[in-house]
Amino acid sequence: MGAERFNQQIAFIIEIDRLKSVIRRSYLVSGERHENSAEHSWHLALMALTLAEYAAAPVDVSRVIRLVLVHDLVEIDAGDTYTYDPQGRLDQAAREQQAADRLFALLPADQSAALRALWDEFEAGATPEARFAVALDTLMPLLHNYHTQGRSWQEHGVDAAQVRQRMQRIRAGSEQLWQYAEGLIAAAVSAGYLRAASDQA
Amino acid sequence: MGAERFNQQIAFIIEIDRLKSVIRRSYLVSGERHENSAEHSWHLALMALTLAEYAAAPVDVSRVIRLVLVHDLVEIDAGDTYTYDPQGRLDQAAREQQAADRLFALLPADQSAALRALWDEFEAGATPEARFAVALDTLMPLLHNYHTQGRSWQEHGVDAAQVRQRMQRIRAGSEQLWQYAEGLIAAAVSAGYLRAASDQA
Repeated sequence: MGAERFNQQIAFIIEIDRLKSVIRRSYLVSGERHENSAEHSWHLALMALTLAEYAAAPVDVSRVIRLVLVHDLVEIDAGDTYTYDPQGRLDQAAREQQAADRLFALLPADQSAALRALWDEFEAGATPEARFAVALDTLMPLLHNYHTQGRSWQEHGVDAAQVRQRMQRIRAGSEQLWQYAEGLIAAAVSAGYLRAASDQA
Repeated sequence: MGAERFNQQIAFIIEIDRLKSVIRRSYLVSGERHENSAEHSWHLALMALTLAEYAAAPVDVSRVIRLVLVHDLVEIDAGDTYTYDPQGRLDQAAREQQAADRLFALLPADQSAALRALWDEFEAGATPEARFAVALDTLMPLLHNYHTQGRSWQEHGVDAAQVRQRMQRIRAGSEQLWQYAEGLIAAAVSAGYLRAASDQA
């Protein structure tokens, strides 16, 4: 094997260990701590394997898995941007593009291009695989919030209208998962986990 | 969608969140804490994507990825068994079989069989994909130990002969990765991260 190529690959593997230290707003179902972006990505991959039959269009499940495995790598530099943080979202795209430029460049050119293409595909959301991956990534925090009695919603003052609007992103990837999300939001409001939005919100 | 099938799938997704609380002996490269088995599984999946060209025989990378994504799920019930703990390894197989029986049964029958087959394949190590997945799973802790100055080795009194013997598992999956591991062990001994074994060990 070419020593330089191999060293680049190992350097990339060591570097991405840092995704395990990027902390999300979601809590584990157990409630013991916040979730990190590496374990979240693993969870999404298994969710893809389990729920692929609900994709709006037939998907290559192996590519959905690759999309979710790489989709958060940029957070190593750019950090996790909270969904309901309009300020953070303003420059999110620029920060993440810069991060992608640096991180994927650690790899040999062919692999750099391949992983960058996966990340770009997820971001663009223009293929059935990307739309389904985005749907899973949107649904997952709803599950975590519901199963921790809305803890993260309450800490950040999020209401049902905001969640309902966010969950629209599921619809293009899976009508059935979107319907499920709608039901879960209603159940969360009924249970007192999520405050109902006022009509003026 | 069938409500019962869907409920089983969601219950499985919620249940496996617990893998994020299974703590391994390895430290993150940053040294800030021990690694958990969910984020470890994610890391292996990206390692598979990056290093597949070194597999001893041509592999279906997507199946290698699936193997590593599910290989540690049984630890939810059985816990992580430390490689260098002969006592814990005595009943490891029995504990993990029992865990597999319970966990995969949460899924609808077809998916239960499919995921169980992946886990069985990894355990049996009889396909090129499983041998390569095992090689990655064996190499990863060596990388973590090396990049934390042998912290976990020292805490558990592990010596180079034990590590060298363990790393033999890499060889059937990748001669090249095994050679790399041999070199890393030698470098770890030279750097004082890992104590050399006595000839009597």
